[in-house]
Amino acid sequence: MYVVIPAGGSGTRLWPLSRAANPKFLHPLTGDGRTLIQATIDRLAALAPPERTFVVTGGAHVASIARQIPDLPEANILVEPSQRDSAAAIGLAAAIIARRDPAAIMGSFHADHLVRDEELFRETVRLATRAARDGLLMTIGIAPTAPETGYGYIQQGAPLGAAGYRVRQFEEKPSRERAAAWLAEGGYLWNSGMFVWRCAAFLDELARQQPALHAGLTAVAADWDTPEGEETLARVWPTLPKVAIDVAVLEGAAAAGRVGTIPGHFGWNDVGDWDTLATVLAQATDENVVLGGDRSRHLAVDTHNSLIAPGSERIIATVGVRDLIVVDTPDAVLVCARDRAQDVKQLVETLKAQERALHL
Amino acid sequence: MYVVIPAGGSGTRLWPLSRAANPKFLHPLTGDGRTLIQATIDRLAALAPPERTFVVTGGAHVASIARQIPDLPEANILVEPSQRDSAAAIGLAAAIIARRDPAAIMGSFHADHLVRDEELFRETVRLATRAARDGLLMTIGIAPTAPETGYGYIQQGAPLGAAGYRVRQFEEKPSRERAAAWLAEGGYLWNSGMFVWRCAAFLDELARQQPALHAGLTAVAADWDTPEGEETLARVWPTLPKVAIDVAVLEGAAAAGRVGTIPGHFGWNDVGDWDTLATVLAQATDENVVLGGDRSRHLAVDTHNSLIAPGSERIIATVGVRDLIVVDTPDAVLVCARDRAQDVKQLVETLKAQERALHL
Repeated sequence: MYVVIPAGGSGTRLWPLSRAANPKFLHPLTGDGRTLIQATIDRLAALAPPERTFVVTGGAHVASIARQIPDLPEANILVEPSQRDSAAAIGLAAAIIARRDPAAIMGSFHADHLVRDEELFRETVRLATRAARDGLLMTIGIAPTAPETGYGYIQQGAPLGAAGYRVRQFEEKPSRERAAAWLAEGGYLWNSGMFVWRCAAFLDELARQQPALHAGLTAVAADWDTPEGEETLARVWPTLPKVAIDVAVLEGAAAAGRVGTIPGHFGWNDVGDWDTLATVLAQATDENVVLGGDRSRHLAVDTHNSLIAPGSERIIATVGVRDLIVVDTPDAVLVCARDRAQDVKQLVETLKAQERALHL
Repeated sequence: MYVVIPAGGSGTRLWPLSRAANPKFLHPLTGDGRTLIQATIDRLAALAPPERTFVVTGGAHVASIARQIPDLPEANILVEPSQRDSAAAIGLAAAIIARRDPAAIMGSFHADHLVRDEELFRETVRLATRAARDGLLMTIGIAPTAPETGYGYIQQGAPLGAAGYRVRQFEEKPSRERAAAWLAEGGYLWNSGMFVWRCAAFLDELARQQPALHAGLTAVAADWDTPEGEETLARVWPTLPKVAIDVAVLEGAAAAGRVGTIPGHFGWNDVGDWDTLATVLAQATDENVVLGGDRSRHLAVDTHNSLIAPGSERIIATVGVRDLIVVDTPDAVLVCARDRAQDVKQLVETLKAQERALHL
């Protein structure tokens, strides 16, 4: 198979570490020193060799990605001239791969998620690959463990082989009550944004539902390996519809009975905010997590259940606190109650309103 | 009168701002941009002109003091070759002043205290000066407002003129119960370490109680304004007894009926720890204090009753916290619960134990 990694999104709720110019996937948030995109690449290496692994990203991140993943061929970093949302990003990779290998099956995986059981993850992807051979657009749904309101949901339909289901429909982020009801009822999965399909099957659906996007991407892919490639990309890209892949393709394909899902039980986390990250990285109850692992950078007196992210040679000292997040960076220090981790977004919005671009 | 300002002590509980090399009195902790020693000098300027104002300090702080107080004559910064405690420091100034002006009255005031009502403070000092004319060693006691266990106490004796009292005895730092009993009983004052006396009267008591110290300081003062001054100081200073002035002179003088006190009601604070400083500087209940006053350096969401000390161009952002102290410096960040401000001392001890001298 081919692996496609759309590497975008700035991870606003992980400010001040994650910035527009230095987004979440470039940071060592895995607990073992690797960055999120390095861990993503490592996790997928057994499924596709480097020459069949593609990263789609903005020009600002190409150099960092190239250095963080030295094995990735330079030509496999597909550079978007501007952000045009996930349908264009993933579609670009699909169109380029399909031209080189018309029978190709590709999987698309975000650059900034964490997976606990990597072998089970790969097994799940292999099951999805098998189902994708028949032309279904497969998603990997996550078996929910809590009534999360921050994710979209997938409603399962009829069983599909031994391990999967047809997808009846995609659901928007629910209220707490709806999420709790779905969790009790069963048959709903979190939409993780991981997809596996034949490139050709995906492009057929794209042509059916988003003909302009399909035409544009086909034109770009046709010239990609020619001297006109750059010029065609620069001309066509700004004209492409800016739309998320779920809305552009998946929802309509599900309505047409063409989407399937494999429930994933491998322990998945989208590292959306500091509290989630602290929960994932803590080894024991009430333990403090020191990001990067160098505990000598944290000087603690009576400190519990906190996440400490040292950012430089500075020491972070804490006294008499618990359930706290402390993040040190060269130009900003964040101190945040763990149960208020969602509100970090407010800080970033305030900075935007104050036009303090240097801190964004 | 003459003013003497012993400028020593590192202010351990104000780490990471206050350091051995950059102690408390050199920092702008007054809330109006002035450093503590600048505020101290300003507060006393109406009582003594610069040429009759002396600062006694260690060599490491001379340059900072000279720059922070441009009006102070260079010769009035008395440089201790090493730390030999307060009896030697204050005694050195007394001996030097007495040689130049045998009838001189001097007041000694710490460099790192805060006073709310400065006019009332000066009025209190003037009352002490009047009582000191008769040869009494006067202290300025602070009328207690809480059962503080962090200060020594002064027990009042018989009235002395209209405003003062003889001192019956000095009391060590008490238990919480004793402090509460004294507060209820009345007649006890906090020992602020502010003294007013005739230099000659003080030196007589020094000669009686600490003859070696008196002899050494007299020898140093005799040569001070001569070419041998430096050599005599270097030879004699290391031999001087290392003793606090209360123990060396005041306690014994009180027992002999030679100490008086004027109760001070001017709002006094020794800025001993971050919590105390926050309390002094807050303008309103539940308000956040931003040290230095530049509120644009603090980005707050739902933050209350906290002290924020930005240390550089860095922003400090806080979300969903209250009663917190956040101090940013170039090499350390402190996050401390206000009611645990005393425990900052533990951090410094840990750093010492780890021999992380750079952070001390």
